[in-house]
Amino acid sequence: MVAVPNIKLNSGAEMPQVGFGLWKVDNPVAADTVYNAIKAGYRLFDGACDYGNEVECGQGVARAIAEGIVKREELFIVSKLWNTFHDAERVEPIVKKQLADWGIDYFDLYIVHFPVALEWVDPAVRYPPGWHVDGKDKVSRSKATIQETWGAMEGLVKSGLAKNIGVSNFQAQLLYDLLRHATIPPATLQIEHHPYLVQEELIRLAKHEGIAVTAYSSFGSASFDVFGMKQSVGLTPLLENPTIKSIAEKHGKEPSQILLRWATQRGLAVIPKTTRENVMALNLDCTSFDLSEEEIATISGLDKGLRFNQPPNYFPTEMLWIFG
Amino acid sequence: MVAVPNIKLNSGAEMPQVGFGLWKVDNPVAADTVYNAIKAGYRLFDGACDYGNEVECGQGVARAIAEGIVKREELFIVSKLWNTFHDAERVEPIVKKQLADWGIDYFDLYIVHFPVALEWVDPAVRYPPGWHVDGKDKVSRSKATIQETWGAMEGLVKSGLAKNIGVSNFQAQLLYDLLRHATIPPATLQIEHHPYLVQEELIRLAKHEGIAVTAYSSFGSASFDVFGMKQSVGLTPLLENPTIKSIAEKHGKEPSQILLRWATQRGLAVIPKTTRENVMALNLDCTSFDLSEEEIATISGLDKGLRFNQPPNYFPTEMLWIFG
Repeated sequence: MVAVPNIKLNSGAEMPQVGFGLWKVDNPVAADTVYNAIKAGYRLFDGACDYGNEVECGQGVARAIAEGIVKREELFIVSKLWNTFHDAERVEPIVKKQLADWGIDYFDLYIVHFPVALEWVDPAVRYPPGWHVDGKDKVSRSKATIQETWGAMEGLVKSGLAKNIGVSNFQAQLLYDLLRHATIPPATLQIEHHPYLVQEELIRLAKHEGIAVTAYSSFGSASFDVFGMKQSVGLTPLLENPTIKSIAEKHGKEPSQILLRWATQRGLAVIPKTTRENVMALNLDCTSFDLSEEEIATISGLDKGLRFNQPPNYFPTEMLWIFG
Repeated sequence: MVAVPNIKLNSGAEMPQVGFGLWKVDNPVAADTVYNAIKAGYRLFDGACDYGNEVECGQGVARAIAEGIVKREELFIVSKLWNTFHDAERVEPIVKKQLADWGIDYFDLYIVHFPVALEWVDPAVRYPPGWHVDGKDKVSRSKATIQETWGAMEGLVKSGLAKNIGVSNFQAQLLYDLLRHATIPPATLQIEHHPYLVQEELIRLAKHEGIAVTAYSSFGSASFDVFGMKQSVGLTPLLENPTIKSIAEKHGKEPSQILLRWATQRGLAVIPKTTRENVMALNLDCTSFDLSEEEIATISGLDKGLRFNQPPNYFPTEMLWIFG
């Protein structure tokens, strides 16, 4: 079994540095995918309400536990609060529903998915609610501040529904403001991060504040191509980038492993996704070799400040420039 | 006299689109500079506690009023709340001190200078307090949230000490959070803005939310060169940029006027600074000609995402990556 290092969180908990991302894992294969990933050695699973597959992911977990492959306490299950549940009184009920979907009684880490507060949508009416586009293509915002939402997130730790809480897609200024009012600081910050979006300053700030950083979209645009984003036009995919490929050849590794090692050597956690079992093993085994400082710097030099996960790109009906 | 267009604020007030920026106006010349600028036709003056010259600027205003050149109500005087006065109970007292320094009884616009909350420094001990570096080169933060500070800012409108309130150097996410808790939304957002930092998305968001945008550093790095920032090394100054120069020649204008017109035609207010009287007149007269849509797009195409006003650049003792 591949040995995966842990990252120590500011709460004292240990989080696996390499996990498995559940975005875009299709429902029909989600249970098998999670089950196979556990067999391959994955212990951290990064899910979300918005991914729409928590029931099936939970089935994969249940099967692995039933077969004695793993115990619940050996897993590190992550989920996220969707935008439509930011109002303080909506947080605990939706977490309980998400836990029921997974078939577990606590999350190891529960994250504010976006700093975007939208009006509540009854899960009985539409679930997952998505970006809340009604017949008029209009977003209805909620007035819940991040402080209100975070207060309810802190309540999850107190009630034991989440062992750790964190945030995702937060910029520096909002993170600083959160640190001013938080009684429990975020354990992690999850951000888009790849050699075309290095985010050096935000990572430096997070480290300075004792917040662990998890990288998503480590392979760049692959998952966003489907949205036909203008950013992707004419762009060399990272997995085919000559710099990445030549470093991969030198080490006898796959380009994907180089991208993951570049992130993990910088101290970040990663959550790659695949449904192919051989690739699962390769991705998990991304901390068993080291890049040189020079190679890390060369890869960081590919930075273009290019962000793929900009909601207006796939949600064009309202100007929602959350990263402006 | 040059006719300067007004921008209508969300409060209903009118703000001149071209004003005079007071950063780096040296104390010995500040009174004469403001006086001469009023004579040249400037009506908006953009000051701040941090600029350390409010007493002298106020003397220039007083002289112009005493000589009947202008009435107080024809002026639009802007000042800013410094980082060390973010605690709610510090806001009104410091505004009263700043008003006394200016010799006036209200500001037309009062702005949160940075979304950075530092521990209070008694003005009797050090004023302006700057970035609050003590003997150990350490920043002491305050726990005042933006919500706390903004509540006190709203109090200034209620008490009549400020006709309008706004923010500066805010990113999109913090602006959205502010809009959730504000009972008086910010009238303006002041940001660094020039063809090397176009900030298209943030400007689009502000416009969508009815917030007027004021550009500072319209000429790029000129004022930041003194800090020896690595961003400036090898960079063609905007005033010498061949694209800007050729458009200027075509229009028979100065490069500085092209830079200001590019911003004002995009709907922004500008606050250039100079101590030279002929340049004062040229800068003020930057809305009397029009660039073509193509010229505007060409200038916007110079964008490098290059920010000069990044506090860690001139405040290297603490990692304060507020724009990360």
